[in-house]
Amino acid sequence: MKNTAILLIDCPDRKGLVAAIADFLYSHNANILHADQHQDAEQGLFFMRVEWDLADFDLAIPAFRDKFAPLAARFNMRWRLELSTERPRVAIFVSKQDHCLADLLYRHHSGELACEIPLIVGNHADARRLAEFHGIPFHVIPVTAENKAEAERRQMELLQQHRVDLLVLARYMQVLSAEFVRRHPSRIINVHHSFLPAFSGARPYHRAFEKGVKLIGATSHYVTEELDEGPIIEQDVVRVSHRDQLEDLIQKGRDLEKAVLSRAVRWHIEHRILVYAKKTVIFD
Amino acid sequence: MKNTAILLIDCPDRKGLVAAIADFLYSHNANILHADQHQDAEQGLFFMRVEWDLADFDLAIPAFRDKFAPLAARFNMRWRLELSTERPRVAIFVSKQDHCLADLLYRHHSGELACEIPLIVGNHADARRLAEFHGIPFHVIPVTAENKAEAERRQMELLQQHRVDLLVLARYMQVLSAEFVRRHPSRIINVHHSFLPAFSGARPYHRAFEKGVKLIGATSHYVTEELDEGPIIEQDVVRVSHRDQLEDLIQKGRDLEKAVLSRAVRWHIEHRILVYAKKTVIFD
Amino acid sequence: MKNTAILLIDCPDRKGLVAAIADFLYSHNANILHADQHQDAEQGLFFMRVEWDLADFDLAIPAFRDKFAPLAARFNMRWRLELSTERPRVAIFVSKQDHCLADLLYRHHSGELACEIPLIVGNHADARRLAEFHGIPFHVIPVTAENKAEAERRQMELLQQHRVDLLVLARYMQVLSAEFVRRHPSRIINVHHSFLPAFSGARPYHRAFEKGVKLIGATSHYVTEELDEGPIIEQDVVRVSHRDQLEDLIQKGRDLEKAVLSRAVRWHIEHRILVYAKKTVIFD
Amino acid sequence: MKNTAILLIDCPDRKGLVAAIADFLYSHNANILHADQHQDAEQGLFFMRVEWDLADFDLAIPAFRDKFAPLAARFNMRWRLELSTERPRVAIFVSKQDHCLADLLYRHHSGELACEIPLIVGNHADARRLAEFHGIPFHVIPVTAENKAEAERRQMELLQQHRVDLLVLARYMQVLSAEFVRRHPSRIINVHHSFLPAFSGARPYHRAFEKGVKLIGATSHYVTEELDEGPIIEQDVVRVSHRDQLEDLIQKGRDLEKAVLSRAVRWHIEHRILVYAKKTVIFD
Repeated sequence: MKNTAILLIDCPDRKGLVAAIADFLYSHNANILHADQHQDAEQGLFFMRVEWDLADFDLAIPAFRDKFAPLAARFNMRWRLELSTERPRVAIFVSKQDHCLADLLYRHHSGELACEIPLIVGNHADARRLAEFHGIPFHVIPVTAENKAEAERRQMELLQQHRVDLLVLARYMQVLSAEFVRRHPSRIINVHHSFLPAFSGARPYHRAFEKGVKLIGATSHYVTEELDEGPIIEQDVVRVSHRDQLEDLIQKGRDLEKAVLSRAVRWHIEHRILVYAKKTVIFD
Repeated sequence: MKNTAILLIDCPDRKGLVAAIADFLYSHNANILHADQHQDAEQGLFFMRVEWDLADFDLAIPAFRDKFAPLAARFNMRWRLELSTERPRVAIFVSKQDHCLADLLYRHHSGELACEIPLIVGNHADARRLAEFHGIPFHVIPVTAENKAEAERRQMELLQQHRVDLLVLARYMQVLSAEFVRRHPSRIINVHHSFLPAFSGARPYHRAFEKGVKLIGATSHYVTEELDEGPIIEQDVVRVSHRDQLEDLIQKGRDLEKAVLSRAVRWHIEHRILVYAKKTVIFD
Repeated sequence: MKNTAILLIDCPDRKGLVAAIADFLYSHNANILHADQHQDAEQGLFFMRVEWDLADFDLAIPAFRDKFAPLAARFNMRWRLELSTERPRVAIFVSKQDHCLADLLYRHHSGELACEIPLIVGNHADARRLAEFHGIPFHVIPVTAENKAEAERRQMELLQQHRVDLLVLARYMQVLSAEFVRRHPSRIINVHHSFLPAFSGARPYHRAFEKGVKLIGATSHYVTEELDEGPIIEQDVVRVSHRDQLEDLIQKGRDLEKAVLSRAVRWHIEHRILVYAKKTVIFD
Repeated sequence: MKNTAILLIDCPDRKGLVAAIADFLYSHNANILHADQHQDAEQGLFFMRVEWDLADFDLAIPAFRDKFAPLAARFNMRWRLELSTERPRVAIFVSKQDHCLADLLYRHHSGELACEIPLIVGNHADARRLAEFHGIPFHVIPVTAENKAEAERRQMELLQQHRVDLLVLARYMQVLSAEFVRRHPSRIINVHHSFLPAFSGARPYHRAFEKGVKLIGATSHYVTEELDEGPIIEQDVVRVSHRDQLEDLIQKGRDLEKAVLSRAVRWHIEHRILVYAKKTVIFD
């Protein structure tokens, strides 16, 4: 089994940065497997993801944190260290439509998603059988206008109790409160339809159909307090024509939603995403 | 050389329609080469494009119009007859950027676009040399806030004088007046960038770059009085990443604009497009 | 629920064909919902798919067959009539990898595939639990070089006993005998990887990886006696780069296989495919 | 104007490589603009492209070569240094079809391709007018079975005389001799059609049409002595259907050829391509 460390860094771009990081890793005998960096020239920012084998590495993880901190401070880094052996813990929220849930669970089962899924929460009970087939505890927490605060309190308790790292909204049709969102920065991934031109408001597929669009799309993104406006992680589109009826658009939309959501989840749990300035760097 | 007639029909959907049309054509010995139809079930509408060889057809074109009129009236058809031997006359308007113009002229030259291009009009002189290389008269009509009405008057004179069937705005950066547009219904094709989500207003590529979109797109459409809201003819997108700088987005955008505009022009001059209810049927 | 008839025709192209068919349907008060036709000019062939509502239709189905036969004979038609109320009966063969099976079963469950699935046959037992979750009988028929003829005999018995209309090979890793294939013309759909350039032989993903291809693809097709050379139904590709490792290629390949196989199955059970001259017309 | 250096490295992967390179550049005050690296784990190889601003760099280019050589030797590097101010010199060979040539010349004219084009060579005279419009000397060197050796001698003289760095075969329909190819390793880019499955031999579009493929593709690659088997640089495909006639396939193929060839040329002249083990790393 893979036993690697992944270091993610963003900081102001300065000469000597890469040399300092590379020297540090080399001096502790890191066997680097992948390294990728990016510079935002306009904003003068530097981003890096480096993954190395821990086999020959001569620092234990707590020692790494101690030793790396001064270097990080010198360059004003925001940084984090992730370990491939600590599989992220992912909760999934779902409503009635289960196509994204089924897709995620299949990919988890087949080994594509290297995470734990300790729980699934539905505001309806429809997905229970599917969750149980995959052996994952399923909690029903109905949400109404009246009980919303209480429902979110229970949801957050569950997330805490299961030490959840990432929350995936798999066509979860409730809007999370600003408070809920604020407490999980860059920790909630959502998926929604996207059209050219964009339609806001209700019944987007109906309106796209009326408008006669030739492409329909979907976007996965981190949830922020601005509804559906958080940093974009992935987008995709599919071609439609006048022959496609409303139900065809909706069906093609489902396939897009599955694709862009599962890619976003995968990249997140493989620690490939850095968020800055309301957008994302995706290290591939 | 191809000598065919193309009949385009839209009307309320009624039983017996196809039988009536097919009987009519058969009774006059039409050798049908292509036929395509579409029904909009929700709105109860019927659309048809049928193309036949005129070699054995026993009606002359004026006679066709006389004989077909009663049938058309019976079914409340909007219809038109086009002849492959009458190549549509296309005018192109351009500003400084000439990538769409160059693409259209190359495709015309290579035989992909079966039309005449009797003139090109620029509000700047930049494209003159390119036009002349292709042997097409180039007219400079500068447009300012002050002279706009007069400039449009001159433009419309030219269109009339050259009996222009279709006006293509090949990155023409002036907004046409409502009056100009009204006089050319479904006769003006434009191209513009499209993003997910859409941005209105100035400097769209800058804003897409700031937003960190993962796809950029372009849309070609018929021009109506609502700016950039006319019936969509074609759309396409291309993938971008955090590695793409602003200039990369703009360059990829140019390639998309060329692709979606040239397809729209091709389909129009091949009489493959029917417009209804603010959208299009594209017979392929 | 939809109660429609679908008529599929192919025959030599002749004047009067469409008129004759349309007259026939009109004279029996058919309310046509969709009609699509295609002509292969080079080979002089005509293809048609027409679907009508049976509500007002004045012929019962057996009567239709009697009355339509003379017309069909006159034009040398190959034709068949399908009824939307008679859902095709589909068997799925699977080996160890279950990604295509899981995808098909989910689409069936969600209503995208309007068919019955009376049985699943595996040459291994791995997919049993998945089949049972979906409530579909699962049969294990191991296949070895020695028992192959006997295994196929049992498979064919099952297909006959369950009156199966279509057999889907969902990553079934055994080659069917020529005899088996011959008995199910245009009734078996398979999926396989496709590369540019193509690789024949073993371990195609390994060889594509070594070759450094920039695209990987998959093809679904009808099975004929020539291995993987039957009429192509659908193809798709996805982009890869030097960053993609062998396992990434294989994973992306799985997603492609799911997509192109499920589309092929859908089109088949919606009676949208006509096979001729080793290729397909797909009526959309 | 940009004044940068680009260092391209490939060598066996070893610990300390990145640290050594980064230290070297930092010690000479390089302001790194882009850096990208890749590791082929299976083969134990390391690849890097790093670009820095020469403004503050404290080594002149000849001095760089002297100082870097020992480090390069220590790690067994193959390496080269390129300067953004030294625009690569590109020759284009063409036959009768000029779509790729026209596309490349337009992109050169619009600034997308940062190279010089000192000459165009045709084995026919058809492209002369297009070359002259762009102000580029055009040489006609007819090639027959008899004069091939002599023709290639003249071609190579021209390449040498114009100090050509890259030769682009823009639908040049002659096969270059093994000797010619050997003298320009990773210096000749070609484009050809690609299909799923692949067809070798004559008239590929005809055969793809007969086969009923649902996708057509094109590949750009470096020319090696094995015909059309050199390292792949870029590939793309487009969807076709039974409605596409042979001429539609050919036209769509032309658009693909333009796209994949121009991308390959752009990446080459921006020094983004490393060739190894018959495949390519494309630094983006």
